[in-house]
Amino acid sequence: MHVGHYFGALQNWVRLQDEYDCIFGVADWHALTTAFDNTQEIEKNLIEMVTDWLSVGLDPEKSTLMVQSLVPEHAELNLLFSMITPVGWLERNPVLKQQLQDMGLKEAVGFGHLGYPVLMAADILIYKASRVPVGEDQVPHIEITREIARRFNFLYQCSVFPEPEALLTSSPRILGIDGRKMSKSLNNYIALSDTREDIQKKVMAMFTDPEKIRRHDPGHPERCNVFTFHKAIANPKAEEIERDCRSGSLGCVACKRQLAELLADFIDRVTFLRTRYQGKEKLVREILVEGSRKAREIARKTMEEVREAMKISYGIAR
Amino acid sequence: MHVGHYFGALQNWVRLQDEYDCIFGVADWHALTTAFDNTQEIEKNLIEMVTDWLSVGLDPEKSTLMVQSLVPEHAELNLLFSMITPVGWLERNPVLKQQLQDMGLKEAVGFGHLGYPVLMAADILIYKASRVPVGEDQVPHIEITREIARRFNFLYQCSVFPEPEALLTSSPRILGIDGRKMSKSLNNYIALSDTREDIQKKVMAMFTDPEKIRRHDPGHPERCNVFTFHKAIANPKAEEIERDCRSGSLGCVACKRQLAELLADFIDRVTFLRTRYQGKEKLVREILVEGSRKAREIARKTMEEVREAMKISYGIAR
Repeated sequence: MHVGHYFGALQNWVRLQDEYDCIFGVADWHALTTAFDNTQEIEKNLIEMVTDWLSVGLDPEKSTLMVQSLVPEHAELNLLFSMITPVGWLERNPVLKQQLQDMGLKEAVGFGHLGYPVLMAADILIYKASRVPVGEDQVPHIEITREIARRFNFLYQCSVFPEPEALLTSSPRILGIDGRKMSKSLNNYIALSDTREDIQKKVMAMFTDPEKIRRHDPGHPERCNVFTFHKAIANPKAEEIERDCRSGSLGCVACKRQLAELLADFIDRVTFLRTRYQGKEKLVREILVEGSRKAREIARKTMEEVREAMKISYGIAR
Repeated sequence: MHVGHYFGALQNWVRLQDEYDCIFGVADWHALTTAFDNTQEIEKNLIEMVTDWLSVGLDPEKSTLMVQSLVPEHAELNLLFSMITPVGWLERNPVLKQQLQDMGLKEAVGFGHLGYPVLMAADILIYKASRVPVGEDQVPHIEITREIARRFNFLYQCSVFPEPEALLTSSPRILGIDGRKMSKSLNNYIALSDTREDIQKKVMAMFTDPEKIRRHDPGHPERCNVFTFHKAIANPKAEEIERDCRSGSLGCVACKRQLAELLADFIDRVTFLRTRYQGKEKLVREILVEGSRKAREIARKTMEEVREAMKISYGIAR
């Protein structure tokens, strides 16, 4: 993982923990929609991903970290939702349309792939979530989730489900140190495993506003990647920097030194947390098992209400 | 229920109990594919149907009687199968095509309705069934079940699932006492709740071969509904009757008396069993709970193998 990933969704998730009761789930069943014929890596990726989550500050004391397939109630709710979801809703899903175009698929699309949003609705609604932190590209899926919730409540004359809202992350898109998209293959990234020295070097080499050539030239923070980083890392002095850059009283070297310091501090914290989890698969598994157990308690309660509303509980405990 | 229903699938099921380890399931989730907007009657129908099953001789000591939704593993396997089933297989399903035509649906078809055969495959394969007793109309679904089993075994290089075969019932189509289709609305049926006297009267009133007018006229058993009944109820003397009817040595009255006797004896047994179960909802429920518990043990084992084969068990017990 590099800082580009972190400043995408994860930083936002870390912050949400203090504001909401959060459930973060690994959608391993969803992974099968495209990886069903190549499942060798799913377990490894799952453990690595959650290790990353823990390292950047998702905190099992504050939030619930769980795995979809460890809460089989998701599959039951998915099935029940599939009964009330018209195929047309799914065929019109723009996310799917784009994917099919990209993958050159059509009739060969998997039935479960077509049903991706139904399973996602089950994942969200089984916890009666009010907010779902997603990227812009996932908004159509949240829309389908809302429609399913509405339809369920209407069909069974109940109010079991809320209509959850997408919580769009306003994370600025940060670029690599050379001004191109940050990516591993371009070797222009700052890794979460970089040392203070690495970071120092990389930040000092970053491209800045090309019109600010000398220290006292007035700069344009809005087109400077270094300033985007300041905002991304939530530098409390960002406003000051913006003003002083524009006025010419702050030079790029000083500005970058500040950033390097903040980034290095941040990565120190990550490194500290990472030592707690990296290579400790057993601990990571335990966290997921415990989180899934907690999640399952909620899921079970919701399923009881669902069966009750649909009149298919038969007074028999599950 | 009338004897027409019994001589359809049920009689065959009762016989299969002595030949196979049978699992008979109530597909209450499948009922939702069309009844999702009218679920009021599902529970009542379920109890009535199983009471009928028990009354005609499905024996909880010999077979497993269970309810689909009481074994949630079916939903998990359904979800996993959905990932490996191309939508095209389901869109080409002739059973669905016919239904959509009959119902005037198209895009409005439910996603779960489209996936009917996937859930059915899960129902069958979770028990690694070798045979499935179905009517001709369900053969396409068994074909999809076989394709899913084959695809799973191929994709995950395993032999978890057998390819089950349809066990077609050769039950003759018996008609009502007036020679039309036996139906409640035509009031031409013999009910499983009829008394000996009812049966006597109804059988004596049955239409026979119109060319056999006098006792000694040679008859045509192949077009006589009374003879179809003799075969349906497995009268050991059926061959004799056929011969003597043809030769003219057996008259219709004597032939009908034999049938009335056999039918009345059969219905006596049903009545005897029915008194054990009719109106005893609690007992019926207990049988289903216990059957579902037994079924679930098998289902759980299969799911372990499935997750193992797909590499999504993560060494974590469910």
